[in-house]
Amino acid sequence: MKKLINAVDDVVREQLEGMASAHSDLLKVHFDPNYVYRADAPVAGKVAIISGGGSGHEPMHGGFVGMGMLHAACPGEVFTSPTPDQMYEAAKAVDSGAGVLFIVKNYTGDVLNFETAAELAFADGIRVQNILIDDDVAVKDSLYTAGRRGVGTTVLVEKIVGAAAEAGYSLDACADLCRRVNQYGRSMGMALTSCTVPAAGKPTFELGDAEMEIGIGIHGEPGQKRMPMSTADEIAEMMALEILDDPAYSRTVREWDNDAGSWVDKFLVDEPFQAGDQVIAFVNSMGGTPVSELYAIYRKLAQVCADKGVTIVRNLIGPYITSLEMQGCSITLLKADAEILKLWDAPVNTPGLRWGI
Amino acid sequence: MKKLINAVDDVVREQLEGMASAHSDLLKVHFDPNYVYRADAPVAGKVAIISGGGSGHEPMHGGFVGMGMLHAACPGEVFTSPTPDQMYEAAKAVDSGAGVLFIVKNYTGDVLNFETAAELAFADGIRVQNILIDDDVAVKDSLYTAGRRGVGTTVLVEKIVGAAAEAGYSLDACADLCRRVNQYGRSMGMALTSCTVPAAGKPTFELGDAEMEIGIGIHGEPGQKRMPMSTADEIAEMMALEILDDPAYSRTVREWDNDAGSWVDKFLVDEPFQAGDQVIAFVNSMGGTPVSELYAIYRKLAQVCADKGVTIVRNLIGPYITSLEMQGCSITLLKADAEILKLWDAPVNTPGLRWGI
Repeated sequence: MKKLINAVDDVVREQLEGMASAHSDLLKVHFDPNYVYRADAPVAGKVAIISGGGSGHEPMHGGFVGMGMLHAACPGEVFTSPTPDQMYEAAKAVDSGAGVLFIVKNYTGDVLNFETAAELAFADGIRVQNILIDDDVAVKDSLYTAGRRGVGTTVLVEKIVGAAAEAGYSLDACADLCRRVNQYGRSMGMALTSCTVPAAGKPTFELGDAEMEIGIGIHGEPGQKRMPMSTADEIAEMMALEILDDPAYSRTVREWDNDAGSWVDKFLVDEPFQAGDQVIAFVNSMGGTPVSELYAIYRKLAQVCADKGVTIVRNLIGPYITSLEMQGCSITLLKADAEILKLWDAPVNTPGLRWGI
Repeated sequence: MKKLINAVDDVVREQLEGMASAHSDLLKVHFDPNYVYRADAPVAGKVAIISGGGSGHEPMHGGFVGMGMLHAACPGEVFTSPTPDQMYEAAKAVDSGAGVLFIVKNYTGDVLNFETAAELAFADGIRVQNILIDDDVAVKDSLYTAGRRGVGTTVLVEKIVGAAAEAGYSLDACADLCRRVNQYGRSMGMALTSCTVPAAGKPTFELGDAEMEIGIGIHGEPGQKRMPMSTADEIAEMMALEILDDPAYSRTVREWDNDAGSWVDKFLVDEPFQAGDQVIAFVNSMGGTPVSELYAIYRKLAQVCADKGVTIVRNLIGPYITSLEMQGCSITLLKADAEILKLWDAPVNTPGLRWGI
């Protein structure tokens, strides 16, 4: 294992220290329990947006803390869910009284721990919402998930809902928007190589020199299929069509009801893409693939979208939700209405995404 | 070789097509000869800033075309100098009459071809300046270079001089600033793995599982030394001290004299860093190293700078001058006076760097 790290046990702490040192104008880091939070939190009158998950996906989530995006992020150990006390303490630190929205990627550990944190925060008098991100069309159920995994749409959700909070949306309005953006987004990923979790010291899985894994998860968990290595065009087209042709997807999610003080089930149906849709297209590096190769993927993606009558109106291309040093990419398409586009274009100032400031 | 590409001969063209498709609001791509240029070029009354070099270092240079940075970029084949006609045609396309500044990384092919392009442009009545970037403290002379190589400082120079052009600096003022910023910047890189040039199909060099290369060039050309793999702290400290303790560096460069219509030699001396200096710190990924590991490097770099009495007042952390999918990093420190900081902070709107817009 060759990485720019010191002792394996210190990897997350030291990366957070580096981040705090580099971006003290934007964020602070609290240790034990670990969370990253806006330097100016709590922000008076504004709903606080919090996310979190295992480390190893940087810049997500810690790198998205700042004006117009997250108020706090809770990093677990590498590829390991953060604990409820991280989320609960982060909520107390950044709640302004307007409530806290937890953006939760759909992995079993994350879901359980954010639910516990929501109950703890509510018991303290903080109004909370828990919204699930489950956008990965590759697999239904996986190593760490019941239902679809939460992947690339998370980055877009955090930008859009972060802008809504900044604009003064109420907690319920932020939650409704978050749910809708998740329902509008679909993703799929692929890997050329494995990644190596520092504590494991060896690659999570093995891929032959002429093989690739389609539908890979962001923790290296198995995807749909292992195939012979193919061209950028074939890979982009295969992933784009899985997303664009994905039928309606329905499932029941659990959300918090602040009035009843209990969990409620909601039945959700994500409608498929259709000709005439406008989308934000996000081509993401898994960490080890350089941006030059992402442009080869984007080139074909744009052609496939055009053929389907889907218009790309914004794009994001680069390493934003990574799997350590894994080589590969993911594609996310997000149906964007006027409200979503306006929020996407709003100023943001974080280590990982910045414009307008 | 596993990469997200189609045919090897089409790699650069297709990446440029992807870029043109993704960023049509910012830039256009001209093919045969290939150059990327600002969508709104020529910009009336403003000096045009042009750079270029071999492909494989993205987002540099094409990803830095846009408001507040480059007016045009000339991409060669992977790790191969662009040709004089690319530079000459780009100059004609973006010159507003205020003149053209070529920012030239110090590699023999780039230097010769930019000199030829300058002569061609001047013969056409375009006022030109050619400024060399030679900031790599690792080696004096190398596989492709007489003198120091041009590396990380190039990114910072392009931002700062691009802002100056935007602010209305004259051609000579842009050139003087460019020369000064280069003289204020020093860099050093290291690699954990090789990269694979598509046309070669195999790694440029071999590194053992427990080895690293210190002082690597951005084309995989040999560095100072091959060493046993070490910790992030030791690597960051070693590179930081080579930069901070680098003595005065002198050499003679050739620049164009528009009044005489001929080349003139200039003797330059870069003064060493000293306690009390303010710097911009740039921790760069070679392409395959994720940003999380860069924060481990930044953490130690900040400590070493503090110990030397050097204050980091701005930073840039991420993959900006890459070597395809090479794993590793580089550090650049740039002494920053008030004028440089003001230009650094000015708005920029390119695919690779964006703020204030």
